[in-house]
Amino acid sequence: MNPLRLEKILRDALEEDLGWGDITTEAVVPPDAEARAVIVSREDGIIAGLDVAKAVFRILDPSTLVEPLVPEGSPISRAAPLCNIQGRAHVILSGERVALNLTQRMSGIATAARKMAAIAEPYNVKVTDTRKTTPGLRMLEKYAVRIGGGYNHRMALDDAVLIKDNHLVAAGGVLEAVRRARRRVGPLVKIEVETESLAQVEDALRAGADVIMLDNMEPDLMREAVRLIGGRALVEASGRIRLDNIHQIVTTGIDFLSMGWLTHSAPPLDLSLEFCQGREPRGEAP
Amino acid sequence: MNPLRLEKILRDALEEDLGWGDITTEAVVPPDAEARAVIVSREDGIIAGLDVAKAVFRILDPSTLVEPLVPEGSPISRAAPLCNIQGRAHVILSGERVALNLTQRMSGIATAARKMAAIAEPYNVKVTDTRKTTPGLRMLEKYAVRIGGGYNHRMALDDAVLIKDNHLVAAGGVLEAVRRARRRVGPLVKIEVETESLAQVEDALRAGADVIMLDNMEPDLMREAVRLIGGRALVEASGRIRLDNIHQIVTTGIDFLSMGWLTHSAPPLDLSLEFCQGREPRGEAP
Amino acid sequence: MNPLRLEKILRDALEEDLGWGDITTEAVVPPDAEARAVIVSREDGIIAGLDVAKAVFRILDPSTLVEPLVPEGSPISRAAPLCNIQGRAHVILSGERVALNLTQRMSGIATAARKMAAIAEPYNVKVTDTRKTTPGLRMLEKYAVRIGGGYNHRMALDDAVLIKDNHLVAAGGVLEAVRRARRRVGPLVKIEVETESLAQVEDALRAGADVIMLDNMEPDLMREAVRLIGGRALVEASGRIRLDNIHQIVTTGIDFLSMGWLTHSAPPLDLSLEFCQGREPRGEAP
Amino acid sequence: MNPLRLEKILRDALEEDLGWGDITTEAVVPPDAEARAVIVSREDGIIAGLDVAKAVFRILDPSTLVEPLVPEGSPISRAAPLCNIQGRAHVILSGERVALNLTQRMSGIATAARKMAAIAEPYNVKVTDTRKTTPGLRMLEKYAVRIGGGYNHRMALDDAVLIKDNHLVAAGGVLEAVRRARRRVGPLVKIEVETESLAQVEDALRAGADVIMLDNMEPDLMREAVRLIGGRALVEASGRIRLDNIHQIVTTGIDFLSMGWLTHSAPPLDLSLEFCQGREPRGEAP
Amino acid sequence: MNPLRLEKILRDALEEDLGWGDITTEAVVPPDAEARAVIVSREDGIIAGLDVAKAVFRILDPSTLVEPLVPEGSPISRAAPLCNIQGRAHVILSGERVALNLTQRMSGIATAARKMAAIAEPYNVKVTDTRKTTPGLRMLEKYAVRIGGGYNHRMALDDAVLIKDNHLVAAGGVLEAVRRARRRVGPLVKIEVETESLAQVEDALRAGADVIMLDNMEPDLMREAVRLIGGRALVEASGRIRLDNIHQIVTTGIDFLSMGWLTHSAPPLDLSLEFCQGREPRGEAP
Amino acid sequence: MNPLRLEKILRDALEEDLGWGDITTEAVVPPDAEARAVIVSREDGIIAGLDVAKAVFRILDPSTLVEPLVPEGSPISRAAPLCNIQGRAHVILSGERVALNLTQRMSGIATAARKMAAIAEPYNVKVTDTRKTTPGLRMLEKYAVRIGGGYNHRMALDDAVLIKDNHLVAAGGVLEAVRRARRRVGPLVKIEVETESLAQVEDALRAGADVIMLDNMEPDLMREAVRLIGGRALVEASGRIRLDNIHQIVTTGIDFLSMGWLTHSAPPLDLSLEFCQGREPRGEAP
Repeated sequence: MNPLRLEKILRDALEEDLGWGDITTEAVVPPDAEARAVIVSREDGIIAGLDVAKAVFRILDPSTLVEPLVPEGSPISRAAPLCNIQGRAHVILSGERVALNLTQRMSGIATAARKMAAIAEPYNVKVTDTRKTTPGLRMLEKYAVRIGGGYNHRMALDDAVLIKDNHLVAAGGVLEAVRRARRRVGPLVKIEVETESLAQVEDALRAGADVIMLDNMEPDLMREAVRLIGGRALVEASGRIRLDNIHQIVTTGIDFLSMGWLTHSAPPLDLSLEFCQGREPRGEAP
Repeated sequence: MNPLRLEKILRDALEEDLGWGDITTEAVVPPDAEARAVIVSREDGIIAGLDVAKAVFRILDPSTLVEPLVPEGSPISRAAPLCNIQGRAHVILSGERVALNLTQRMSGIATAARKMAAIAEPYNVKVTDTRKTTPGLRMLEKYAVRIGGGYNHRMALDDAVLIKDNHLVAAGGVLEAVRRARRRVGPLVKIEVETESLAQVEDALRAGADVIMLDNMEPDLMREAVRLIGGRALVEASGRIRLDNIHQIVTTGIDFLSMGWLTHSAPPLDLSLEFCQGREPRGEAP
Repeated sequence: MNPLRLEKILRDALEEDLGWGDITTEAVVPPDAEARAVIVSREDGIIAGLDVAKAVFRILDPSTLVEPLVPEGSPISRAAPLCNIQGRAHVILSGERVALNLTQRMSGIATAARKMAAIAEPYNVKVTDTRKTTPGLRMLEKYAVRIGGGYNHRMALDDAVLIKDNHLVAAGGVLEAVRRARRRVGPLVKIEVETESLAQVEDALRAGADVIMLDNMEPDLMREAVRLIGGRALVEASGRIRLDNIHQIVTTGIDFLSMGWLTHSAPPLDLSLEFCQGREPRGEAP
Repeated sequence: MNPLRLEKILRDALEEDLGWGDITTEAVVPPDAEARAVIVSREDGIIAGLDVAKAVFRILDPSTLVEPLVPEGSPISRAAPLCNIQGRAHVILSGERVALNLTQRMSGIATAARKMAAIAEPYNVKVTDTRKTTPGLRMLEKYAVRIGGGYNHRMALDDAVLIKDNHLVAAGGVLEAVRRARRRVGPLVKIEVETESLAQVEDALRAGADVIMLDNMEPDLMREAVRLIGGRALVEASGRIRLDNIHQIVTTGIDFLSMGWLTHSAPPLDLSLEFCQGREPRGEAP
Repeated sequence: MNPLRLEKILRDALEEDLGWGDITTEAVVPPDAEARAVIVSREDGIIAGLDVAKAVFRILDPSTLVEPLVPEGSPISRAAPLCNIQGRAHVILSGERVALNLTQRMSGIATAARKMAAIAEPYNVKVTDTRKTTPGLRMLEKYAVRIGGGYNHRMALDDAVLIKDNHLVAAGGVLEAVRRARRRVGPLVKIEVETESLAQVEDALRAGADVIMLDNMEPDLMREAVRLIGGRALVEASGRIRLDNIHQIVTTGIDFLSMGWLTHSAPPLDLSLEFCQGREPRGEAP
Repeated sequence: MNPLRLEKILRDALEEDLGWGDITTEAVVPPDAEARAVIVSREDGIIAGLDVAKAVFRILDPSTLVEPLVPEGSPISRAAPLCNIQGRAHVILSGERVALNLTQRMSGIATAARKMAAIAEPYNVKVTDTRKTTPGLRMLEKYAVRIGGGYNHRMALDDAVLIKDNHLVAAGGVLEAVRRARRRVGPLVKIEVETESLAQVEDALRAGADVIMLDNMEPDLMREAVRLIGGRALVEASGRIRLDNIHQIVTTGIDFLSMGWLTHSAPPLDLSLEFCQGREPRGEAP
């Protein structure tokens, strides 16, 4: 991740939640009160984003101690202490919500990606995300996909050529579209074409596409397409892949599949931040 | 909504997705090609955010025509055309993903809020959101809650006093905490106290709280608390309220309930943007 | 205060004053010269903003030592040393003007607020500010009001409903306006109505306003309004209240009054920053 | 003025006042209601900043019609209509406070500058401002000084060399300081030295300063200094000049004087924005 | 190009050059004076950036008419009129320098790229740029390279994997480094390895690199490397390639070469903006 | 230099080069690997910008040690070690390109300025830059000119009045233009007029210009103009001055000359950053 972009995301998020300031804490808690807290999980899953939580508290006060207790990507179980925090009570109370909102979402995505990758890996198929991410949080969500064992598809519109049917209408067909793209993009950029039929797959092959996307095809048609392509291009499966249909798809011989569901619908992992009252944070107990 | 803040959110989102530019469209589609498109729903629900979609395309090119076909908050059904778009093909292709990512999320939240409000309204109970929103998108998500028929709880930490157990530890009890808050905040700010037992409810009443939150209480205990409060403060129910337990809660006599689920877990509504190829956009069909 | 918003205000202010850089200091003072300085008051008043001054110098160089010698809100007298500063001469010289411009304004407001609060408190009346603040500095100015013993009215247009006559024209009367507001805003938001006559006061009461503003009323009329309201809503007095008429107003039975004068016209407190030449800063003298 | 910098100032000011949005107007006024309003003065003075007010409303909605009725810098009298505004009621209500807060301050400064310039001009003395401006609003305040007939001293620390006593300590005297400055700054930058005695004036002359500031000198000493300088440098008087002592100073033979008071203490001009209810805005009456 | 990123670059550039405003123009030219001007070349070359110049003037005033007279990428000759501008004299005078500074640099790069591409094309070799661009202007400079007939290498560090010797030290060799990269990056990202010897080329081949860079090799060694690679990877030549040595390199069989010189040292094309005094702009002459 | 503006330039530059993050380094180098590196020159010249390079690495990680080995403005020779860097390998690899791109450009400008100043100084002529700088980098480029021994002309359009022929057309002649400028600008601002003939020089003198620019005049005409001016104004020579014609110009009696070439065409100094593999960085060798 780009640490400067992360800082900007977190500053914007804190500004959004703090507004003129945390009036409850300012009114009720003495400014110099110290506190210890621990982030705890309320369900099983894969943890992602503890360093992001750490950065949230450190932006508010660089002297805050934030100590993750498990490595990124670890499987965690219910009630597991994940991260100790020690510092000014004001800072912990004011940063709590932003830190949890982000870590819950990231861990939810990592948990979902891990589940999908476990299904796909035995078939040597990679699970990738899409551009259906939360506006403003793409860097964090795509990072969470990687932490979970998935791979990133295009990061943005500048990242690879992906010719869809809408483009084809304007370009006059696959051959012409790929030709135009080759003439413009540099030698490090791959060109992918979206196809919905074997005829289009053949066009894409002839045009010399680097990657061919099989969009919303039935498993049998996918298998046929894979045979037709015969290793001359990478093959991607796409189109509403979820937990209930991924099994059929990973056996079709494709190289990778992409799932919007990973980032727009994976359920967040339920985490909480608990203050330690006069006793040691749980994470440090023997 | 604050139109300047909306513009900033959308510019950041477009910058995130465009990067150095949409290289596929630049390579494949002539710069002056015109196009027509329509946003269509793929499922039933409540629509929210068409004006946001409109603003996305207008930021890229103010001359783009974007015409919502249904009013915000309308119930829509599968395949319904929702919005016509006409302008430079480059603009529609480059803005599509950001527009859909936002509208899908907002409509999903509005759909969920409508469902919950329908359950709560007969009992004169208001459904509110929480601060468990997506960092960066709170304004849009809380707007979607309102569009769906819900109400907004605190917008941010500066918006009302909400004293939680963590605050109480540092303040030395409810009475002292509320006293401190009264001394600091102005006469337009309400003071709410989170309680987990009847004893705490009594403390909060004695301290003169404007609002008392019943956190994670069983329905029977809630009923008792409502009786105890007897109209001397507004009563909020809170704590993992979802579709499967909301029914018991709305009958307890509370004034309103808050649900983090509305914004962190409501499923997005599936929308798509389709180019109109040589024919009229569906929305204009008789 | 929100520390991130404070940082942004100060960075903008320093950028405004530094431009391409402090060419006098760069030309005339060796880059590694160290210096000690003290902020001194040239008149009696209430000090506010020393932490803001501290933040100014720390933004330019985090290693600068800035030690306030009196607590925020203290009454100070002429020639009193208020704050020691020690660090690179470049930093002190370049930050001086921004630090003083802000602290003088904030202390002037705190001084004025204290004076007004002292008059109002015996009658159990709160003094509040308005939105007539300096664009860009509202957070600092409203903080200074609190430091002086005043209270904050609405922070911004999103903070409470305040229905003025202009709104009434468009809404078709007080009853309809309050009804609309109740339907839209959440249970934590108070609704205030501006009134200019007893008839309007009655309307506001009937509509169930939480707060009723008596705008530009004569003291006798105010008294009558207060009687009419009879505790069913909070009562605010407003309209060109200054030092010469505040006494009459505080005895009318109102709950609080608001003064634009506090923030747009309170005279700044005259402070100066003096370099210590080869001797100890005054503040440390025995 | 730099129009881009103006836009940034106004967007920041609107963001500060709008927050999540103008909830009163959104709740109470229909979104498509149109309105007409007029800005009116409540006292005599010099008007400055109507174009700034215009820009405020145009940022919120570029289709708003804003028509100043008097030219910048005009003397205006009580009750004079200054500016017509026509557009969406939402826009006028939401922008009103920011527009007035700025225009009142700018007109107050222009009014004060005009008064001072009228006293100084007969003696061929120019009135200038200082860097004691409101952080964030310097461009607008210095513009208002010019509109009132004053002149701008340094805009910022990058604008001219001004060697003060603090600098002299570090530089080892006037001669050395001016020599260092000459070696560093380009041929278009003037060098000014602050002096408190005739001895220092002589040093400054010998060092070849372009401008000599007489700081806090008594009028008689000023006269002597002016004679000593004898046209070899421009002469500035400085040090708590206000309405009650400016008369003595302008007769001493100086070239210009500077007043912090102009920008930190000039009283704002009382303006108001009034909605026109079913009748023509006053400004257009015959 | 990303139009929002372009706008940000231009706003920053105008802010840099305008500061508090264009004081000469404000003082000397009436605010409503209209003017016509033409951008003219003073030497032969390839034009790039007229749309950027257009955007500069349109940011200052959207009503300015800017009409390019030749298409981007055209060869132009000395004295050729390139672009008509018509609008407020203030706008043209204030935007002139920024518009010319950018267009001159972009046209210089396009001119250089065209020259190099003309040498390389007959050998089917592509000329690419590097990341040795001017900080802040990369998007414009890489666009100019494309306009001139060159291709873009990596846009930024996120764009493709390029393993250099420094990376190899830390990774423990080419095989391990490529393996790690494959495990992390998605299926659309190419992996390139920098090599300085045939042994390293062999390692890179074995590791399955998509692209092999021959860094600072002599032409004969390059030829040998190309033979060794035998089409199993794309081959890039790199290392201080300039006009005087490019001829030898393009005949070695490589696929493409990269030149930092294109962006850090190509001489700007000399353009000027001339006001049309009472006569038609030259560009419109028959 | 303004340190806050520098920070903004560097953050923008790093954001531009990092994008979503340095994927090569993230994939290939362990996150906690430490490294030492040294910046080395590949040619003779004047060094400028090491503190800028230092700031680049410190923004990415404040704990990075960056130790310049030679003072700014030193003449350096080929292979000289200039700066040691020690810290996380990730930070050094990710910041390398931005640091070098800036330092190479700045050192190139300083080297060119030194060469020109050496020619001009014996004749007591100052070499200045122009506004023909790289948009976004003006502060750094003008600093480099000073480091090389040159002087800065106007920093921006707000910095001094410079009346060019285009302005004269609109103002109705030199006398009127200067008169208008005097009336508007403060006593610290110099007024310069561009002239192309002796007649214009006479006008400028009569108008009381502080500085007269001789634009594109032949040396003999310059000499005559200097005689005519006779010390009544500073004299600047301007117009495509380069290494091959500067000698004639410096002997004409002018006070200073300005060269756009210094900033738009000075060749960058070739620097490189080399990792130290298991041995001490060269700069520390005995």
